[in-house]
Amino acid sequence: MGLVVQKFGGTSVGSIERIKNVANRVIDTVQNGDKVVVVVSAMGKSTDQLVSMASGITKKPSNREMDMLLSTGEQVTISLLAMALQEQGYEAVSLTGWQAGIYTEACHSNARISNFQEKKISKHLAEGKIAIVAGFQGVTNDNEITTLGRGGSDTTAVALAAGLNADRCDIFTDVTGVFTTDPRVVKEARKLNSISYDEMLELANLGAGVLHPRAVEFAKNYQVKLTVRSSMVEEEGTMIEEEVSVEENLVVRGLAFESNVTKISVCNMPNNLSGLSNLFTTLAANNINVDIIIQNVSDSENTNISFSIHSEKLAETLDVLEENKSELQFEEIRYETGLSKVSIVGSGMISNPGVAGQMFKVLSDQGIFIKMVSTSEIKVSTVLDQSDMVKAVEVLHEAFDLSNIKTPQVNA
Amino acid sequence: MGLVVQKFGGTSVGSIERIKNVANRVIDTVQNGDKVVVVVSAMGKSTDQLVSMASGITKKPSNREMDMLLSTGEQVTISLLAMALQEQGYEAVSLTGWQAGIYTEACHSNARISNFQEKKISKHLAEGKIAIVAGFQGVTNDNEITTLGRGGSDTTAVALAAGLNADRCDIFTDVTGVFTTDPRVVKEARKLNSISYDEMLELANLGAGVLHPRAVEFAKNYQVKLTVRSSMVEEEGTMIEEEVSVEENLVVRGLAFESNVTKISVCNMPNNLSGLSNLFTTLAANNINVDIIIQNVSDSENTNISFSIHSEKLAETLDVLEENKSELQFEEIRYETGLSKVSIVGSGMISNPGVAGQMFKVLSDQGIFIKMVSTSEIKVSTVLDQSDMVKAVEVLHEAFDLSNIKTPQVNA
Repeated sequence: MGLVVQKFGGTSVGSIERIKNVANRVIDTVQNGDKVVVVVSAMGKSTDQLVSMASGITKKPSNREMDMLLSTGEQVTISLLAMALQEQGYEAVSLTGWQAGIYTEACHSNARISNFQEKKISKHLAEGKIAIVAGFQGVTNDNEITTLGRGGSDTTAVALAAGLNADRCDIFTDVTGVFTTDPRVVKEARKLNSISYDEMLELANLGAGVLHPRAVEFAKNYQVKLTVRSSMVEEEGTMIEEEVSVEENLVVRGLAFESNVTKISVCNMPNNLSGLSNLFTTLAANNINVDIIIQNVSDSENTNISFSIHSEKLAETLDVLEENKSELQFEEIRYETGLSKVSIVGSGMISNPGVAGQMFKVLSDQGIFIKMVSTSEIKVSTVLDQSDMVKAVEVLHEAFDLSNIKTPQVNA
Repeated sequence: MGLVVQKFGGTSVGSIERIKNVANRVIDTVQNGDKVVVVVSAMGKSTDQLVSMASGITKKPSNREMDMLLSTGEQVTISLLAMALQEQGYEAVSLTGWQAGIYTEACHSNARISNFQEKKISKHLAEGKIAIVAGFQGVTNDNEITTLGRGGSDTTAVALAAGLNADRCDIFTDVTGVFTTDPRVVKEARKLNSISYDEMLELANLGAGVLHPRAVEFAKNYQVKLTVRSSMVEEEGTMIEEEVSVEENLVVRGLAFESNVTKISVCNMPNNLSGLSNLFTTLAANNINVDIIIQNVSDSENTNISFSIHSEKLAETLDVLEENKSELQFEEIRYETGLSKVSIVGSGMISNPGVAGQMFKVLSDQGIFIKMVSTSEIKVSTVLDQSDMVKAVEVLHEAFDLSNIKTPQVNA
């Protein structure tokens, strides 16, 4: 008899009917002889409704009170799912974050899990019950309710799987698995049977949106066997694990892309020790997330620094830079909007050094101009004109053989 | 500087606008120099919506899971009210039942408060904050979320006022105070300036609906000075206290009435020691609430027992009696539906023995037939045809001089 943690997101529990459907999925697993811990998010639009109520009262709600408000969302779901399981004759018990022993740092709205007291759940499992745990939430040592930020329910599921030493953690979502790229954009996109933690981490960070990076990182650190699969369709999903055995011949395993990228260049800054750190410390202090960073030395004394941001942060970024112009000592700011980022990801790159060059050639053969490049051991990111994005993804998907993946059934 | 507990019910916090209005009422009190603890219910219809979701899943939700579900209602209100106070520049902190140290018996859906750890609230008060506490809910020693049943938020407010040794407890509601009778039915109904705990207890038990009996009982036991007043209208309410000083000349202070009463007679039961106790133990075990009980001996060996119930329990009651017929050894059941109960309440009755007789005469002068009578030291209840109810209330209201009460302003 194994132990499985199953997580169902907001869409999967978006209505009473869907909650009943989730109960059936859970019962299938129980009937396979496994003990089950279920982690759920708030029902579909309920978080939006709660946010909208708060915005009727204040434009700047305190993080503490938002956590108090939003954490009711998952509490509704856990009780309804427990009822649905009980209605079918199964013993189930719902647990809020604080009841489940999920302790976090004292940081509202984006807390990290600091400690998990697994006995609070395992005692219910030992009594033969299905434990239904509210995702996305925890409690500080001072009994303050916290939430874990975006993708928090994924992180809850992985943390519980790690702490309870579960045999696997199933993330049920509204897609059937992790795809080579977004199937809504590239119709040749194929579902992957498996992917490594590191690859998933790069894809998650690159905005593939299936799993939150923090959850993947947690899974990697604790070697939790993760699967991503559909809550609606009965179909094998994608397994995320340390060593990927299937489709080994793939050098590139996935393509990620995002639009609304803006490139900002800070020109003729003095080329001294603290210049670079001053610039990015200032931006970080103003909550501006910088993605790719490139530094070029223009002459011996001055340097140009370029970086990319999300376009919606442009006005704010320009303000911050202008306010700090005298301190940062740059001469000029240039920026270019209407850009996109296209990345290839694959562990196979480590042993295949020509992959980046191959990518650049595929793009240049199509007349696509590359404006920025950033690489890691298993990733190459390029910044391109937004109008070239879809074309770039299509030709790269084809060039790296991702359209030809066969997806045999694997045992999840 | 005093300490005031203020409770606002579901209608008073029924919308974002009303929550802002409540914030203003609280701020008025703070500006008078008092520290304030606010207790709130779930927003207007939110409890109904939650119940409706549960009923989409099961006809018999477990009490534990209903408590988990319903307790989210107050949690939404406390966070929104805290935001509304913060928006106006006041320091406020919301607290769920478990965060506020409200411990209850291990009994879901209708728990009694067993212990209140006042330090969890008083530390926030000491820091100059307004404490916003979720009514209706508590936690067991095993960290199970419980709810207090009907009128639970009133009980929470009174318990906090007692435990924190507050100077008074204001119950804000959708009426302006306690009336001599229901002003929606009798237009001569007058608001009382004050009423004693015992009188309020009788009226509350008789279904006057303004305050829950359990809350009044709690207030009496701990001598909490209660006021009932409107959250919408700026007007003095009714004070509930031990000794009533105003309107002392009133023998009767209030009239309560309810419809949908059914009288059941169990005929020719053996007149032995255990008969009566067997009957009512059986009914109680089946959750049938019995109100008035009358026993007549029909001959030396047999007895007739009549009792009243709410009409919606009729079918269930008949079933229970039939199932236990052989054990209870009665011959026949008779019942009469379409009845009502009309009661007069007043501490003055203790020193005015003719009050019951006066009541019966007023009714018989109108040709109203009395079918059952029950009395306590400060109450006389009669069961009448439902069609006579309003007429009976009107003539009694007039006969006991309740239409002539002057309501001077009192200092609440």
